Amino acid sequence: MQYTITGHQLLGFSESALGKNTYQTFNPQTGTATPWKFCEATDSEVHTAMELARTAFETYRELPGNHRAEFLRAIAVQLELQQEDLVSVYMQESGLPEGRARGELGRTTGQLRAFAAVAESSSWMEVRIDTAQPDRAPAPKPDIRKCMRPLGPVVVFGASNFPFAFSTAGGDTASALAVGCPVVVKGHPMHAGTSEAVGRCIQMAARQTAMPEGVFSLLQGSSIGLGESLVRHPATKAVGFTGSKAGGLALSRLGAEREEPIPVFAEMGSINPVVVLPSATEPGKGWAKAYALSVTLGAGQFCTNPGLVLGIEGSGWTAFSKALAAEVDAVGTACMLHPKIASQYQELRTDFFAQPGVSRMTSKDEDQADTRATGGVAVVSAAAFRKNARLKREVFGPFTLLVTCEDQQDLMRTLTVLEGQLTASLLGDETEIKSATGLVALLGEKAGRLLINGVPTGVEVCPGMHHGGPFPATTDSRFTSVGTDAVKRWIRPLSFQNFPEGILPPALKDDNPLGILRMVNGEMTADPI
Amino acid sequence: MQYTITGHQLLGFSESALGKNTYQTFNPQTGTATPWKFCEATDSEVHTAMELARTAFETYRELPGNHRAEFLRAIAVQLELQQEDLVSVYMQESGLPEGRARGELGRTTGQLRAFAAVAESSSWMEVRIDTAQPDRAPAPKPDIRKCMRPLGPVVVFGASNFPFAFSTAGGDTASALAVGCPVVVKGHPMHAGTSEAVGRCIQMAARQTAMPEGVFSLLQGSSIGLGESLVRHPATKAVGFTGSKAGGLALSRLGAEREEPIPVFAEMGSINPVVVLPSATEPGKGWAKAYALSVTLGAGQFCTNPGLVLGIEGSGWTAFSKALAAEVDAVGTACMLHPKIASQYQELRTDFFAQPGVSRMTSKDEDQADTRATGGVAVVSAAAFRKNARLKREVFGPFTLLVTCEDQQDLMRTLTVLEGQLTASLLGDETEIKSATGLVALLGEKAGRLLINGVPTGVEVCPGMHHGGPFPATTDSRFTSVGTDAVKRWIRPLSFQNFPEGILPPALKDDNPLGILRMVNGEMTADPI
Repeated sequence: MQYTITGHQLLGFSESALGKNTYQTFNPQTGTATPWKFCEATDSEVHTAMELARTAFETYRELPGNHRAEFLRAIAVQLELQQEDLVSVYMQESGLPEGRARGELGRTTGQLRAFAAVAESSSWMEVRIDTAQPDRAPAPKPDIRKCMRPLGPVVVFGASNFPFAFSTAGGDTASALAVGCPVVVKGHPMHAGTSEAVGRCIQMAARQTAMPEGVFSLLQGSSIGLGESLVRHPATKAVGFTGSKAGGLALSRLGAEREEPIPVFAEMGSINPVVVLPSATEPGKGWAKAYALSVTLGAGQFCTNPGLVLGIEGSGWTAFSKALAAEVDAVGTACMLHPKIASQYQELRTDFFAQPGVSRMTSKDEDQADTRATGGVAVVSAAAFRKNARLKREVFGPFTLLVTCEDQQDLMRTLTVLEGQLTASLLGDETEIKSATGLVALLGEKAGRLLINGVPTGVEVCPGMHHGGPFPATTDSRFTSVGTDAVKRWIRPLSFQNFPEGILPPALKDDNPLGILRMVNGEMTADPI
Repeated sequence: MQYTITGHQLLGFSESALGKNTYQTFNPQTGTATPWKFCEATDSEVHTAMELARTAFETYRELPGNHRAEFLRAIAVQLELQQEDLVSVYMQESGLPEGRARGELGRTTGQLRAFAAVAESSSWMEVRIDTAQPDRAPAPKPDIRKCMRPLGPVVVFGASNFPFAFSTAGGDTASALAVGCPVVVKGHPMHAGTSEAVGRCIQMAARQTAMPEGVFSLLQGSSIGLGESLVRHPATKAVGFTGSKAGGLALSRLGAEREEPIPVFAEMGSINPVVVLPSATEPGKGWAKAYALSVTLGAGQFCTNPGLVLGIEGSGWTAFSKALAAEVDAVGTACMLHPKIASQYQELRTDFFAQPGVSRMTSKDEDQADTRATGGVAVVSAAAFRKNARLKREVFGPFTLLVTCEDQQDLMRTLTVLEGQLTASLLGDETEIKSATGLVALLGEKAGRLLINGVPTGVEVCPGMHHGGPFPATTDSRFTSVGTDAVKRWIRPLSFQNFPEGILPPALKDDNPLGILRMVNGEMTADPI
């Protein structure tokens, strides 16, 4: 390691270690603690970080977009410079393989550069200009112009399963920084060292590009209290979270109960239903293998993991089910992120196998060590599934439940009882899908992303991506946490009425100095006024 | 009256009167009850309305935009056909003058037509298309396309102070209907007859344009329980409310506490601070009279009523204050919406006059009848204002509090303690404003709309309008309740991955049959792919 992991909080450009309580992270591959000790952040450190962010906001929100873009790109460059060290810490704290670490780092730098482009283009400002009509009867119409501006300091919670891409310098951080919101990250306790190493890259980039102190801070902690203090702090204006339903709901309620309520965007996972129409069960289509790989990818530790596969009874479905189970058996065991996650998985899988009417399809069942997980496939009838709430829980791990429906009506009835989802997938040929009246529409009500003939794992970072969905997939289905539209969580409109040209912000000036597409008197144009 | 006001609930295309409890509305001009009796809706009627809406949603959301536009325009035509009756009921139930009634009806039909244009243009769909890159390394990129879709049934609460424009067929209803959400309105108990008359116009328009039954229902009630039942009903997917802070907060917390939390957009009013810079105190500028008229307009019963005017001590400010008070005295009394509102106003005004350090500026103080209000102006030092939370309350009525600041620093300190506002106004010349460092930026943090040299009352309905603002002006500063962007409260994105052309919704098809502007591979274009 070129640098030392100190276990301290990163407060603006400084560090701090006021806390008396410490904790360690764990290497699930070796079954031993990592060498570092992390201080639990104190309330006083929370206050310092948030007040630094509040002050930084006054400067940071006024910076031109290309200056913020420079900062985001400098973070990406720092991550690349430190790549070897970062990958090493990441692997020690997650047990994930090197290819995954490098791929996720590439995704993270890609996101930072994509949001840099958003910052630079000012495309997020949604400008509307309605010019004055002084002669309008019965009353003159004033000049009114509107653009977006940042909400203020954002608190981001690192996610256990994406130590790079959904954590310290992940999509939440990048999207908030892009639009002028300072960010205070709460590092996930399972990969605190990775968080610190990434946090130091951000700190370095902030210095290099002359950002105001407090534009970024990192607080570490393994207790629930730290997150609560961050959400409760009066300087916090919005929260981004990716994790469990229990955690997301608790933070969301805390945000709603504040004296000044704030939006808490929590992405809380999903069971991602997959409907297999008869034609897709044909062995030549290869869906059994493709889905076995999707279910077991990353030891199943993805929020888009397909946890529920529904088909219509018949020889095709029976053969598909067996093939899927055999393919999952063939994958073998995989190391999970943490012994706690592995034991929760094993318990939950066992509980699923024990539910009334559930038959186990996979044969391997010996979890070879505390942190290694074996894939699991089980099958149940639609009627038994519908009446058992325990079968609708998310299993965080390489497990999927097959649901056998009697016919299409039974399938529709079963889909109707599902809660909101991140994704819903449909396997089948076009004619078959078209003839399944109401099926696409019903799935559209349940999910934030629909797929035809694909697997839900592997979330593209692009403008067309919606990584969100009806409750409980997220706390607010109107927003996404992946893709360039993720910035919409952190901005609000501000109207300017009758402002002289000299006082208008650049986005709203007559001559359009930013060169952006604007709605002027109802028409989209990049022309000056 | 061509038709009878029955006092019944309008449930889809039917009516219903299961409730045993009845109430009446009140004519504040005559001090007598109106002739109609209204049934309090029952929980069973709530359930019927919401289930009709749930079923209607399945059809209504799939209608082409021009069909929904036809419905909205038919409502406007019905309102115009029934204009004489509507104006008569409105005046009887509100005590507002005929000119106001006709003006507000014109605004309401204007809004319906503006949202019809939004529905027809599909401009709200925010299409993003990222085409496939099958050759991309290391993994192929799938085709991903995204557009907006409606959330589902929306519950709208009628507002006391805008029986047409913010009630049964007001902006909340029109914006939700435009994007495919059925609407269930809870009529405001102070103008239940107006609500019913307007509701019958919507019912008629829905029949004429062959809308699905349940696209609109109206439930009447004077109890808090009715609103609570509507927000709690599982079919309700979002709520629009304009009213008091207490009411808005209660509904918002109810929405957050549901098993499936839903967004409650509440616009809860504001004291709308106005900063008067020295040059604006010159009598020739006419601001004292303009603001006296703004403060007393509609008996001060507007959420954008300027309730707080701040200036810097000196002879100019003293003269301006006296002139403003004299102009308010000159306006005379005005009828308020309801005796309850009038007595609340009188109590609150008296309480303001009695606060430490507050001096009364207006001389008229006899409220001539239960429902007539006299304008009030008081003055207090900035130091006394800052330390007294009671002086920061909204006074719903023709009252404004002048705050005398020692200097610009004292002014900035005072603005800093204000809560979120719908509007903030600045009077002064451009040089003066520019030299007041940080003033515009600070007001921008506090409000949703900034005005220079204007009055905040009179909210334009146009794309550039933001009628929202940081808490407690609204529950979510990211959304507006006025202007075409008001639709954003009721929509969510849905992504379609790897969909065959034949199954994609029209907005996302290659040949762009709707002819809309779309983001295709990062560029805005209306071209086919």
